[in-house]
Amino acid sequence: MNKGLLVVVSGPSAVGKNTVLSQFLVRYPNSRYSISATTRKPRPGEIPGKNYYFYSREQFQSLLEQNQFLEWAKVYDEYYGTPLAPILEGLESGQVIVMDLDVQGALQVKRRLPEAVLVFLLPPSIAALKARLIKRGTESAQDMDKRLEACQEEIASARSYDYLVVNCEVSRAVDQLICIVEAEKLRLSRQAYLIDILTEGGTIGN
Amino acid sequence: MNKGLLVVVSGPSAVGKNTVLSQFLVRYPNSRYSISATTRKPRPGEIPGKNYYFYSREQFQSLLEQNQFLEWAKVYDEYYGTPLAPILEGLESGQVIVMDLDVQGALQVKRRLPEAVLVFLLPPSIAALKARLIKRGTESAQDMDKRLEACQEEIASARSYDYLVVNCEVSRAVDQLICIVEAEKLRLSRQAYLIDILTEGGTIGN
Repeated sequence: MNKGLLVVVSGPSAVGKNTVLSQFLVRYPNSRYSISATTRKPRPGEIPGKNYYFYSREQFQSLLEQNQFLEWAKVYDEYYGTPLAPILEGLESGQVIVMDLDVQGALQVKRRLPEAVLVFLLPPSIAALKARLIKRGTESAQDMDKRLEACQEEIASARSYDYLVVNCEVSRAVDQLICIVEAEKLRLSRQAYLIDILTEGGTIGN
Repeated sequence: MNKGLLVVVSGPSAVGKNTVLSQFLVRYPNSRYSISATTRKPRPGEIPGKNYYFYSREQFQSLLEQNQFLEWAKVYDEYYGTPLAPILEGLESGQVIVMDLDVQGALQVKRRLPEAVLVFLLPPSIAALKARLIKRGTESAQDMDKRLEACQEEIASARSYDYLVVNCEVSRAVDQLICIVEAEKLRLSRQAYLIDILTEGGTIGN
């Protein structure tokens, strides 16, 4: 078992995932976002190895054949995925790595790395979610019903997750995410080596 | 699944369990100690229903036959145990109930109520534990080795627990215990009803 922790966070559009995750990353030491790989072209300002790893189609497919992706998907003829090696290296070195994924991606991760912790961010109500979507103004009135229906379906998939966090208030949701990470790090499966240290007469560092 | 949480804390003598637990109870809202029942006579100052439930031998055995104890043990011809009914009532009403039990008792609880959370409090080292035992002065020099051997055995049993907390610094250990309780309350198994509330168009309270 690695010393780090892989945390996958999902939630419907406009639930406030980005805000919660960016505040978590500021507050939690030695934490970082996972970096995805994609075959699409870099957009202006995007830095390779920071925003994305930009792969050729051949590179991507070759890694795919070697089973070197933690999760992947094809969207509008472009590939997106999370290369496994940098994640394993980060976990090995004790990092807390955060992934923002949809339900399909999250379940792929859990199958590949069962020790990954799956957190689903819920809105306080569907009405609150609708209000946030309207405020964001990215949906036409016509698309709104379809979008909300998709959100409802996504929320129903939260039953496959490990933890549910309700985003009533951002700072409280961040506190809860921090507690989940802290508690997961204290689980026996990640700390059993402490018992060995003690029974062999050693001292546990702070 | 109940709204409350049953937390069983174990650890070797002098690890600082009482200090950690009493600070936890002060800091964590709606939390309380579990109250044990015993057949021994009340000592001066002990209040029935607060320190202990004082039962006659017949009362205790009758409840035992009805399988109404969460855990129990016979020590020096007296019975000690935790009556199940007040625990279930407390959990139903949302309380966080803390039990301070030895390894045998903790494992009895887990068998009976698998949703109970088992936390083992570790010392930073066996040397630190020995220093605390000497400071406490309850062990003769002769008994010390036997006591430390028992502590080592107890620590090895920590492998049956859910979480390990190292008591290097009391306030940090209390913080960690609080995070464990917070995170456990956020687990899907205890929160799945939130998904029903949302998909039925309801609002989740703060």
